[in-house]
Amino acid sequence: MAGGIFAIYLLLTGICALALWMAGMPGFDAVAHAMTTIATGGYSTKDGSIGHFLNPTVEWIIVVGMIVGSLPFVYYLRVVRGDLRPILRDSQVRWFLMVVLLSVASVTSWIWLKQDFDPESAIRLGAFNVISVLTGTGYATSNFAVWGGFPVMLMLCLMFVGGCAGSTTCGIKIFRFQVLYATAKAQLQRLLLPHGVFMPHFNKAPIPDSVSDAVMGFFFLYIICFGALSAGLAALGLDFTTAISGAATAISNVGPGLGEIIGPNGNFKSLPEAAKWLLSAGMLLGRLELFTVLILFSPAFWTR
Amino acid sequence: MAGGIFAIYLLLTGICALALWMAGMPGFDAVAHAMTTIATGGYSTKDGSIGHFLNPTVEWIIVVGMIVGSLPFVYYLRVVRGDLRPILRDSQVRWFLMVVLLSVASVTSWIWLKQDFDPESAIRLGAFNVISVLTGTGYATSNFAVWGGFPVMLMLCLMFVGGCAGSTTCGIKIFRFQVLYATAKAQLQRLLLPHGVFMPHFNKAPIPDSVSDAVMGFFFLYIICFGALSAGLAALGLDFTTAISGAATAISNVGPGLGEIIGPNGNFKSLPEAAKWLLSAGMLLGRLELFTVLILFSPAFWTR
Repeated sequence: MAGGIFAIYLLLTGICALALWMAGMPGFDAVAHAMTTIATGGYSTKDGSIGHFLNPTVEWIIVVGMIVGSLPFVYYLRVVRGDLRPILRDSQVRWFLMVVLLSVASVTSWIWLKQDFDPESAIRLGAFNVISVLTGTGYATSNFAVWGGFPVMLMLCLMFVGGCAGSTTCGIKIFRFQVLYATAKAQLQRLLLPHGVFMPHFNKAPIPDSVSDAVMGFFFLYIICFGALSAGLAALGLDFTTAISGAATAISNVGPGLGEIIGPNGNFKSLPEAAKWLLSAGMLLGRLELFTVLILFSPAFWTR
Repeated sequence: MAGGIFAIYLLLTGICALALWMAGMPGFDAVAHAMTTIATGGYSTKDGSIGHFLNPTVEWIIVVGMIVGSLPFVYYLRVVRGDLRPILRDSQVRWFLMVVLLSVASVTSWIWLKQDFDPESAIRLGAFNVISVLTGTGYATSNFAVWGGFPVMLMLCLMFVGGCAGSTTCGIKIFRFQVLYATAKAQLQRLLLPHGVFMPHFNKAPIPDSVSDAVMGFFFLYIICFGALSAGLAALGLDFTTAISGAATAISNVGPGLGEIIGPNGNFKSLPEAAKWLLSAGMLLGRLELFTVLILFSPAFWTR
């Protein structure tokens, strides 16, 4: 299984590199960007990120690559064996694609109608940058921090979402939102029919209490860590937008933040050293999914 | 019971009015402010809120009144019967007072050391404005939006907290944080000792799954509604700080937001009409604790 996933990973990266090279990217850049696209890592060999290449074909290839990197890798093993059903029927995949569709559509319409982008640029830049932020890849082809109130706030929210469990993405992840949604829905149903028995479901199976407790603990700690990180960054002198978006982009391992300083056109260089340490701690917390790090602060861990 | 709590409410308001009047407030103002202090409502008869009176005794009386309004009213029935134990032993009351102490101490130290307030003003203004925001009262005696990064971010976080269940406050409330904390803690313990049996506790009693599910659903919907409200306000043209703090102050029924426009020195008058409708919806959602409002959008509610 692990070997199969490793092979899939190599194969997808190879296909992505080949596609980028055929689209006109130099060989080294194609391999480097393929590696950080499928890994939803988002490092670029250029300061201008993917925007540097001014190549719409490259942008669309990477859009597809980022989505591929955000789906559960275990399903690709079934796909190569010719079984497409699991990936098409999985509710997590459907939710993720729905989030992609809705957020890309709303940002595209906004920048087309309100920011006077022509339709082709609106959909290309909208899709690329929204999917980059949502999946936590962190590439940029435009300074989306100046697209106006709604896209900026939506992208801040999307930073928390991430992709599917079992993918290379970070963030809270789609399945946790599904579990939380199912729990909240069952709660509403209980209020309507107090004598009814309602069981939250995920992928048509009931959610065991152990899973919903784990998800609840995770979501709560994620929000608390985000708040604490924001307050810490603000205490170090960062402005409101930089502190909030810096905390979000660090804990969700996205990359760029919002605002003048750490937005897609800026970088973290000018921040105080202490803020960089805090952001590093936030990135570790998020990448290791909180519990693994927080457990180190539990006295019981050291005294066993 | 209901009659007893009503009598307690009247009695506390009467005591508060008397104290304010004895401290030098005119009779009408004393009654009006007592009514919105114990109710943690925060309306003032003056545009300058409590800052108008320039009377430290009045400020401290209201600090006590806001804390009194944030504790579970049912315990006051026991107190008047001479039984102080429940209110002193209740873990929710202890957590609330700990949050008050820590947040007042940190904001006071910040404005004393970083903003050059003299120690007396720092503690008086710090205590008053932090407790006003934490309990969702919404009075102000200073423009705390200009106290600098850390107090502003902390106060944004405190807006979500509120007081104890069974008080007149709004927000997520202390007991929900306790339930979420207990769940997250049990989760960490399970990771350390996978074969152990860990039960989250509240006030020394195990938390039933029905309660933790309800709290989890509430917390999740609260965060989602806050995000949606922020995005909606940003779409209507509000700047980043105004949209985020406006959403927080509305859903938690606090009053003032942060920033130039809706901060303690400003008001909501200049916002577009649509933003006022959105904020009104947010206030209703928060005050009615989400489920009561969200259930109206469930088709099953109308077809029963």
